[in-house]
Amino acid sequence: MMRRILIVGTGLIGASVGLALRDSGYDGDIIGTGPTAETLKVAQNMGAVHSWVRNNDADLMAPTVDVILLAGPVMSILDWMQRLAPLLNERQLVTDVGSTKVQIVALAEKLFNRPGRASFLPGHPMAGKESGGAALAEAKLFQGAMWLFTPLERSNAAELEAEWRGWVRRFGARTMEIAPGRHDEICAWVSHLPQMVATALSALLEDTFEADAAGRDEIAAIGGRALREMTRLGASPYSMWRDIAKSNNFAIAETLHAFEQRLAHIRENLKSPELREQFRLANEFRMKRD
Amino acid sequence: MMRRILIVGTGLIGASVGLALRDSGYDGDIIGTGPTAETLKVAQNMGAVHSWVRNNDADLMAPTVDVILLAGPVMSILDWMQRLAPLLNERQLVTDVGSTKVQIVALAEKLFNRPGRASFLPGHPMAGKESGGAALAEAKLFQGAMWLFTPLERSNAAELEAEWRGWVRRFGARTMEIAPGRHDEICAWVSHLPQMVATALSALLEDTFEADAAGRDEIAAIGGRALREMTRLGASPYSMWRDIAKSNNFAIAETLHAFEQRLAHIRENLKSPELREQFRLANEFRMKRD
Repeated sequence: MMRRILIVGTGLIGASVGLALRDSGYDGDIIGTGPTAETLKVAQNMGAVHSWVRNNDADLMAPTVDVILLAGPVMSILDWMQRLAPLLNERQLVTDVGSTKVQIVALAEKLFNRPGRASFLPGHPMAGKESGGAALAEAKLFQGAMWLFTPLERSNAAELEAEWRGWVRRFGARTMEIAPGRHDEICAWVSHLPQMVATALSALLEDTFEADAAGRDEIAAIGGRALREMTRLGASPYSMWRDIAKSNNFAIAETLHAFEQRLAHIRENLKSPELREQFRLANEFRMKRD
Repeated sequence: MMRRILIVGTGLIGASVGLALRDSGYDGDIIGTGPTAETLKVAQNMGAVHSWVRNNDADLMAPTVDVILLAGPVMSILDWMQRLAPLLNERQLVTDVGSTKVQIVALAEKLFNRPGRASFLPGHPMAGKESGGAALAEAKLFQGAMWLFTPLERSNAAELEAEWRGWVRRFGARTMEIAPGRHDEICAWVSHLPQMVATALSALLEDTFEADAAGRDEIAAIGGRALREMTRLGASPYSMWRDIAKSNNFAIAETLHAFEQRLAHIRENLKSPELREQFRLANEFRMKRD
């Protein structure tokens, strides 16, 4: 039974999990840790964790909890996996919320789910905001969201895994299992490509109108919902996307390349009837989703 | 005084203007015309126009009204300008809601605002929905929206123009004057480029997953707000965008080309620190707007 959970990284997702647990009736201990005392204090003040320990003391705390949730950028999750694996035992479960799964699953297969080792359940809630930080955390962040799992072949902690999945569903999330490679490919399409597109559009507008104050005012006055929506994700922090871009580099590059070609095709056909076919395909895509 | 207005084209924008006029206390006659009797009936049933005449009878109706509003795709506005100009007189005002302005202003300078001719006030409300049609019209469509004007040098109907601008402000719209060339350039950035990006992304997804039913289900299950926002405009109708793409071809091609180059730059730097600079620029753009 999960009587104590350690949340490693109490930013937007980690702190929201703490809040969601309490909101769902969890009455065990929620302990936070992470690199920044300030973030941990914010998380504690808002009730996302009952207490917290400094980064350096996490090694002592980790063996005393039932579940460890690794929340944060992918590279930090990989680091924590290596650091914690030797300290944990077979009755413990480690799970994560990392945005890409191939590298995490590969490392988990080396370090976890072996005799004497803790179990690792790779997870990924499709939830977030364009800005991070504990201050924006919400108990309802996962309501209606998809929480993906890319489980390893065997587990030493089947009951804890089942309990964790139960909490996730009590957060209001839907759950689904998917292979890690497929996860990273689909996420490149539905999340990483849209992010890079919004970043590219925002950065291009910033560069183009940097020395044109009148143009900046015109853009602000005339731009409406279309511009706002297409650039909203431009506010996303590099600190998080650096790790996604690195760990899913190949799939993102492939989708970007296909997208550049599609844009060039549209550009070359702005005055030709082929533009109709591109609008037809786009209409078709939207029709299936509305 | 505007005692009678003829709305040519009672789709989303034309019918919304009719509703907004009545909502703002206009008690004159609102007459509709356009190519499709069905659309005109919808507009009449919802109260956007009091009555309507068939396309073929518009030539007889046009000389009897004070103001004519040309609503519809740009090419149809250009056609109506040529058709109506010889039939109208100096006391009449023609205004429009066309999405691009250079071609419309160039034609207006030839056909209007001359001795014995009606006046033309080029306008463009930055409002709309991803789907068109009278059925989606709303009196509140223009509330908080920007309604741009690209006026010609001189006018024969200054009072009617002032009255029309007054109605537009009573719709809840902000107004601004801008040169037609600059209008088309800024609109390429804030509206036409975002549209082509959303169309390209939607069409690419449709093509990529056309033969992959499992992938389509995964996209639908996993895709969240980011995908929804970045593809919402994929539902926009070709019938309207064909004319925008044609009449603003050069500016759109230029912004698309710059955007393709920016995407390639990001793709080539997914693993390099230069990605940080692109996120910084994008963050900067959003920060000025939030």
